[in-house]
Amino acid sequence: MKFIIQKDHLVQSVQDVMKAITSRTTIPILTGIKIVASEEGVTLTGSDSDISIESFIPKEEGDQEIVDIQQPGSIVLQAKFFSEIVKKLPTSQVEIMVDNLQTTIRSGKSEFNLNGLDSEEYPHLPQISEQNSIKVPTDLLKNIIKQTVFAVSTSETRPVLTGVNWKIENNDLICIATDSHRLALRKAKIETEEEQSFNIVIPGKSLNELNRILDDHDEPVEIFVTENQILFKTKHILFFSRLLEGNYPDTNRLIPTESKTDIVVNSKEFLQSIDRASLLAREGRNNVVKFSTMSDNVIEISSFTPEIGKVMEELVSESVSGEELKISFSAKFMMDALKVLEGSEVKISFTGAMRPFVIHPTNDDSTLQLILPVRTY
Amino acid sequence: MKFIIQKDHLVQSVQDVMKAITSRTTIPILTGIKIVASEEGVTLTGSDSDISIESFIPKEEGDQEIVDIQQPGSIVLQAKFFSEIVKKLPTSQVEIMVDNLQTTIRSGKSEFNLNGLDSEEYPHLPQISEQNSIKVPTDLLKNIIKQTVFAVSTSETRPVLTGVNWKIENNDLICIATDSHRLALRKAKIETEEEQSFNIVIPGKSLNELNRILDDHDEPVEIFVTENQILFKTKHILFFSRLLEGNYPDTNRLIPTESKTDIVVNSKEFLQSIDRASLLAREGRNNVVKFSTMSDNVIEISSFTPEIGKVMEELVSESVSGEELKISFSAKFMMDALKVLEGSEVKISFTGAMRPFVIHPTNDDSTLQLILPVRTY
Repeated sequence: MKFIIQKDHLVQSVQDVMKAITSRTTIPILTGIKIVASEEGVTLTGSDSDISIESFIPKEEGDQEIVDIQQPGSIVLQAKFFSEIVKKLPTSQVEIMVDNLQTTIRSGKSEFNLNGLDSEEYPHLPQISEQNSIKVPTDLLKNIIKQTVFAVSTSETRPVLTGVNWKIENNDLICIATDSHRLALRKAKIETEEEQSFNIVIPGKSLNELNRILDDHDEPVEIFVTENQILFKTKHILFFSRLLEGNYPDTNRLIPTESKTDIVVNSKEFLQSIDRASLLAREGRNNVVKFSTMSDNVIEISSFTPEIGKVMEELVSESVSGEELKISFSAKFMMDALKVLEGSEVKISFTGAMRPFVIHPTNDDSTLQLILPVRTY
Repeated sequence: MKFIIQKDHLVQSVQDVMKAITSRTTIPILTGIKIVASEEGVTLTGSDSDISIESFIPKEEGDQEIVDIQQPGSIVLQAKFFSEIVKKLPTSQVEIMVDNLQTTIRSGKSEFNLNGLDSEEYPHLPQISEQNSIKVPTDLLKNIIKQTVFAVSTSETRPVLTGVNWKIENNDLICIATDSHRLALRKAKIETEEEQSFNIVIPGKSLNELNRILDDHDEPVEIFVTENQILFKTKHILFFSRLLEGNYPDTNRLIPTESKTDIVVNSKEFLQSIDRASLLAREGRNNVVKFSTMSDNVIEISSFTPEIGKVMEELVSESVSGEELKISFSAKFMMDALKVLEGSEVKISFTGAMRPFVIHPTNDDSTLQLILPVRTY
């Protein structure tokens, strides 16, 4: 194998595939990056066996030559060293040459010799037939992930809750995450080639990594689903993730369809009030604040931690309608929800102090956040 | 106690005194910030008993009122909570009021009640008579600290080496730090009121904290020294540190006065070469690179780690004079030294492969860095 490549393209690709690589793997060759040089360009692969990322660097882009392939071939190099090396090379062109697993990396007056591993020993990526894709614009996909993934469970007692449930119903993609104390839901109209339907659970960790790798633009990501794998495909990147096994619980019955008290507040002011009200309660086991409606559309948010002190926040809401209410909830859950909702105003719909309540942006029913209250009153 | 204060001034002062406060203290009241309101303004104090920082907020600055003192008094508040609270308050003015240790903090529609502690129980700061000061411009002081403090020892086997030795000889301030494998020295002409002389050791940790608190400008810092304390005084901040006991070793004889090989290199290029040459050696116990002079002013820097691979760097120096040389040294020590030296070129003076060598900027003898080689050849 021998090729000369533009350093910045190599650095970017290495950075992308590094997101799948962990040093805590039980399969030693997965601490490496697989490099394949073909007539078309150079392909890098990283994997932790749950997530695999493949990044392709084409021979040329537009009129510009990016890689000069002098001899096709392949090698696996220690990711930790290879990624540090390429970042720090002195010149804009890099020559990589393999002779009998001995790999030479040359740039200006720098020369590295690395012991490589046989690429034949690198696990094969899942085979996914590229049929029946759905297409989602990148910025929408990032938004869908951001608005749901934070609510997955971090506990392994019910492994299926550590993932986000994606299902397609009538050309609607519906994404749901819950840790059984709160729930995040996001719907989106999507474009499919033919009538599609699936109901899968994607590990939260995979979606977080995918979000870090995607740039914010509106080019579509193509998504392919098989029984136990999902593939996200962009122009130069393939992102594979295994799916979680098991049936995702039916959460429909959790979401209240009517409400007894509706409150509209400025999202940012409300977030800051909750943040301050919980400042002294963070030490405690539950980080709980009390929320009460007062007269004249005023809302009072408070907390009391005997050893430290108490906080009292008043907030004038846009509107309060329905019954008076006193309720307690986790300040962290409320802040998590408010941070991902778009729009300057949110509507919160309560059905009593003991029942889950729903937060969504006013005039947008594509997304909702649900929180279970804490019984303190 | 009762006063109304501009939030931004309070936040800045709290941030400054927080640098002295640690939660790992054996004296519980030192987890608090002492607040004293007098007719002149508000004074905040934080301390970990080694370092104490006092920050003064005057009643007014120029024409602007900063504090409105309504009733003098004092209190100690938990630093962790108080600092978080003041940062997040909603309005630009803050009212603080103490009634029988119960402290109320009010800003807009936010009200915090904190349990305070009796300020009478807060330890007294060291008394330092403000005589015989030396004055050092702030930016020079920051430079002096930066160019020496990184070289202190991190091991407690010889506690005196965890500090920086400051001494005054003939109006020269001489600052030296060494961990016995390398040494950093910085001299500066200083301004004293009268003939001064001292020879003290300041804990490295204190100097690091001081450096983080000082802004980069050329107003002078006044420095007062007693037998076991040093005080750095700026316009609104008093920074006290205890001194280390014990005699600092005489390092004069360590520094070679003649050389057998002199090399002048571009500082940045040399730093980058050393950085790359050591990339594969960082795992190993010593992070050592080999350095050899070649013909035509070329320098070769290399390292070899059997399991991983090898690196070879070539660098064209500005000049090489004297004997040929092969020497090995710690890449980390060399990079630490190069990062703090100013100027685009450095001169490195060797007196053989087994002897300490000296690095300093060409045309500047106020600062030098000395490194002991490692025996590998």
